[in-house]
Amino acid sequence: MGIERLGYVQVRVTDLNVARAYYTNVLGLREVEVTADRAYLKAWDEHDHHSLILRQAATSGLDHIGWKLESAADLEQIETRAERAGARVERLPADADLATGPAIRFETPSNHIVSLYFGMQKVGNGLPKLNPMPRPAGLIGIAPPRLDHLLVTTEHVPESTRFFESVLGFRLVEQVVTDDGVQVAAFLERTRTPHDIAFVPGRDGGLHHFAYWLDNFSDLAPAADLLRMNKIGIDIGPTRHGITRGHTIYFFDPAGNRNEVFTGGYYVDSDFEPISWSADQLGPAIFYYEGKLNEAFLSVYS
Amino acid sequence: MGIERLGYVQVRVTDLNVARAYYTNVLGLREVEVTADRAYLKAWDEHDHHSLILRQAATSGLDHIGWKLESAADLEQIETRAERAGARVERLPADADLATGPAIRFETPSNHIVSLYFGMQKVGNGLPKLNPMPRPAGLIGIAPPRLDHLLVTTEHVPESTRFFESVLGFRLVEQVVTDDGVQVAAFLERTRTPHDIAFVPGRDGGLHHFAYWLDNFSDLAPAADLLRMNKIGIDIGPTRHGITRGHTIYFFDPAGNRNEVFTGGYYVDSDFEPISWSADQLGPAIFYYEGKLNEAFLSVYS
Amino acid sequence: MGIERLGYVQVRVTDLNVARAYYTNVLGLREVEVTADRAYLKAWDEHDHHSLILRQAATSGLDHIGWKLESAADLEQIETRAERAGARVERLPADADLATGPAIRFETPSNHIVSLYFGMQKVGNGLPKLNPMPRPAGLIGIAPPRLDHLLVTTEHVPESTRFFESVLGFRLVEQVVTDDGVQVAAFLERTRTPHDIAFVPGRDGGLHHFAYWLDNFSDLAPAADLLRMNKIGIDIGPTRHGITRGHTIYFFDPAGNRNEVFTGGYYVDSDFEPISWSADQLGPAIFYYEGKLNEAFLSVYS
Amino acid sequence: MGIERLGYVQVRVTDLNVARAYYTNVLGLREVEVTADRAYLKAWDEHDHHSLILRQAATSGLDHIGWKLESAADLEQIETRAERAGARVERLPADADLATGPAIRFETPSNHIVSLYFGMQKVGNGLPKLNPMPRPAGLIGIAPPRLDHLLVTTEHVPESTRFFESVLGFRLVEQVVTDDGVQVAAFLERTRTPHDIAFVPGRDGGLHHFAYWLDNFSDLAPAADLLRMNKIGIDIGPTRHGITRGHTIYFFDPAGNRNEVFTGGYYVDSDFEPISWSADQLGPAIFYYEGKLNEAFLSVYS
Repeated sequence: MGIERLGYVQVRVTDLNVARAYYTNVLGLREVEVTADRAYLKAWDEHDHHSLILRQAATSGLDHIGWKLESAADLEQIETRAERAGARVERLPADADLATGPAIRFETPSNHIVSLYFGMQKVGNGLPKLNPMPRPAGLIGIAPPRLDHLLVTTEHVPESTRFFESVLGFRLVEQVVTDDGVQVAAFLERTRTPHDIAFVPGRDGGLHHFAYWLDNFSDLAPAADLLRMNKIGIDIGPTRHGITRGHTIYFFDPAGNRNEVFTGGYYVDSDFEPISWSADQLGPAIFYYEGKLNEAFLSVYS
Repeated sequence: MGIERLGYVQVRVTDLNVARAYYTNVLGLREVEVTADRAYLKAWDEHDHHSLILRQAATSGLDHIGWKLESAADLEQIETRAERAGARVERLPADADLATGPAIRFETPSNHIVSLYFGMQKVGNGLPKLNPMPRPAGLIGIAPPRLDHLLVTTEHVPESTRFFESVLGFRLVEQVVTDDGVQVAAFLERTRTPHDIAFVPGRDGGLHHFAYWLDNFSDLAPAADLLRMNKIGIDIGPTRHGITRGHTIYFFDPAGNRNEVFTGGYYVDSDFEPISWSADQLGPAIFYYEGKLNEAFLSVYS
Repeated sequence: MGIERLGYVQVRVTDLNVARAYYTNVLGLREVEVTADRAYLKAWDEHDHHSLILRQAATSGLDHIGWKLESAADLEQIETRAERAGARVERLPADADLATGPAIRFETPSNHIVSLYFGMQKVGNGLPKLNPMPRPAGLIGIAPPRLDHLLVTTEHVPESTRFFESVLGFRLVEQVVTDDGVQVAAFLERTRTPHDIAFVPGRDGGLHHFAYWLDNFSDLAPAADLLRMNKIGIDIGPTRHGITRGHTIYFFDPAGNRNEVFTGGYYVDSDFEPISWSADQLGPAIFYYEGKLNEAFLSVYS
Repeated sequence: MGIERLGYVQVRVTDLNVARAYYTNVLGLREVEVTADRAYLKAWDEHDHHSLILRQAATSGLDHIGWKLESAADLEQIETRAERAGARVERLPADADLATGPAIRFETPSNHIVSLYFGMQKVGNGLPKLNPMPRPAGLIGIAPPRLDHLLVTTEHVPESTRFFESVLGFRLVEQVVTDDGVQVAAFLERTRTPHDIAFVPGRDGGLHHFAYWLDNFSDLAPAADLLRMNKIGIDIGPTRHGITRGHTIYFFDPAGNRNEVFTGGYYVDSDFEPISWSADQLGPAIFYYEGKLNEAFLSVYS
């Protein structure tokens, strides 16, 4: 009951066609639907209509975050909890445009808009339900199987953590804390992975990155090759995070939104005791191999 | 709420010391505790006291399956549902021997004994909760991070599936069905993976195998090397399952219990529409690369 | 000086178009040239005109083996040595059809026809000689970078070994020997790898398999996937050889010629002391993980 | 005939015991012999006595480079060519200390001392010559199988290239050239790999790094883990070279000598047409994923 997983992110791009070309040919998502100012895309092994909406706009950045609910009853429960926590909740009817069932939407203490929905149109993963092959033929680009998580920036990390814990049922897995015990970054989960969302320092409402899953460390090499063969700048990687233990590559879409391919991590029990990183260990916490942040990590985001 | 995950398996071994040597040195589990007739072991990245109990006995095979619950309240709820379904439920107090909190225990339609418990003593994963390394130094053997799933045999696959769905809250992910629509094998999940338990044809109460997780396909090569360098017979693999899409090696512990190391699979939503395999495709369904079963798969188990 | 490497194999196929479709779309070779009854193919990272000639014929099997020489002077030296060893050497002029410079051709004690040539037309690897990318865009199929080695069958293993050592300058790396010291299989090299050619028991003139190289163990998983997704039967693998230590998949082209993708092995010095395998260890020697031969290995070849 | 391969490097370390601990426990070499001021080490799959000599000294850096010859006759031939090229050649008798047979030694135009020797004492790779396992049990650390190549610095790259080509029989594989056609870096081979030695800009006699081989890209992850778990600073990587196409990690030994683990590359024919990189593409040429040099690459070496 409650939030099932990160359903989709809607991000702004400054040239929709350029972004579509990148997300389909290089990242290797499938384009499910295109409208005048939007493109709906999904990773190949996702069954729902989309995990990414690109919206043509003057700037890059995050419009809202879609969370898939396990049941219709979750809508009401979360609405109640969100309102008690002071959020102004908007009810949305089933939306043909978003291909979703009924939803609620509100702003978090970090000034991010979250949309919680029950029921998204299913388009399938391109494989039959009878005797399927392990993957469809003819995948192109990096072709990750699915969306994994996102990081957002905020000036209110502790408040955001508490809101996501108390209102949305997330569990804290890892955090960075100062000597004075102030939480400066927080990694939270709903799916027994090290993070479905994380909060890092930055302006409220910012998008640090969203990440697609890869199955194996060895998949990072052809992914990095494809990025560079297509002249996509790699921010950092392949490298490893201390936090989450995941292996990663960061890079930017043509509009400047940071993308990640991520693999690894670990299984998280519901009674997992959170891991803490002291602020002076932020370097290895973020980039375990380098032992220090690269310049862009905390300063460049959309 | 409900079953959190497969907690442990208790299996019989015919020579406890030989089995202990194998499970620690070759499979690479950590021995947490040893009593007169039992050894408690855990994979390195597990935090709870054990995921495997070896019991000295005259024969190999499965004693019971331990399922970890998310809350104490689950005990009562499942007890009620199990009794309604005709099971005779035994209440167990917190058990120092099993290092668990209160539990209930009963027999399933497949004649397997399941134990559902809330709260197991935590021993940690060998890493600090402050600024941990990605893994402990000095791991030996295959050293999988955690237990993943088990397969059991039964003459009553459809009844077992229904019982696990209705009483224990499992969801069907994949199945093998005859032309007449009879379910001959079933793969069910609680943790959004392709299977936490599966039922395959065989005598009631049998153990087909239990599986430890590996993070990468490339981890299968050193695993297979270590098995053979230690003269452990490989049943089959490295190969790939059609069902679950996982990559795998099967092998036997010294007492004859089948083990597996498993990686891959896919993420399963709660509204996942199950995949079916027709019985004439059982070969590629089980061993996708070979396209047919090996002799031992359906006939040899403990 | 002498033989530089295995240059190409010319094999017979019973349906040239079916074979062409397989070798280009599934194995992922590039077709360089097609004539009425032949197709010339190369792996993507080879620079010379071809490493495989398919010839339309009534049966499958090996026509001849092409060895690339380091210098024109090698032709005469090897001709002299071959004639001294009793071979009837045929001189071939530069051949536009084979895209090679001058060559000599003769039959070995194992009844295989070898062609030694100096100079083959270069077609390049699809990458510029100035600032190249790491690989061409748009590779399809398994797409190995290059031909690696071949195994042939003979009733005369020791004579073949001696001939390849004394006439062609090969070095013995590994062998299988009976208790009586009879060599029943031999693996020989010219390129500091565990084998460029090997002799295994079977009828004279037979082709056991020819193998293309893969860079990583992890490349075997997508290779096996592609084979099965295209309904190509896998003979065995992914598995590991005891001999050569290589990781491997064996499979058959549509005409019945056995192919292999191979990775691993080790570097061999010119003063390497050969490794021996006792005949009763033939199982792990050939298939280290299985510990025994599969049925087809010694009986099925073309 | 001629140089068989890079045999060993002798480097200076400022604390022999600290260096020994690092090279055995972290890099995972085997220590074969220790004297008052030297330690002789080998990678596990090497058969000769050593591939690395550590010498206690006041500074780090390279003492000399040992090249293994294929035959005793090579000594005289290369001596003649070296003297004609103006080198002052020193003849060394068989040397028990170096565990080598007779050798010649001279300085190259880049002020590096090279030692060419025929015959080094064999100590084996820890595996029997009859029915060996694929690797010895109990390897620790990164445990590369063998030494692969080295890079040295010089103010005289073109002269060094010509000397290594004409006197030592190396072949140019890749080079960096300015718009005016000046060669600023050169990669040369004797073993059909992209480089056995390379010359990059820097002071004469400098050591940029020496590299040990790993078999798979996926081996880079545990290697990087082990380095950081042992607090060894990673210079850069895992990343990919444009030049050689190899995947790599650079790091420093405790004395400040740069080490590399390297995998990949490609097979080089003797008639390979060299690849050129324009100087303005030096970034991707050296670090293909980053597209630019890190600060340390050209400025920090020993």
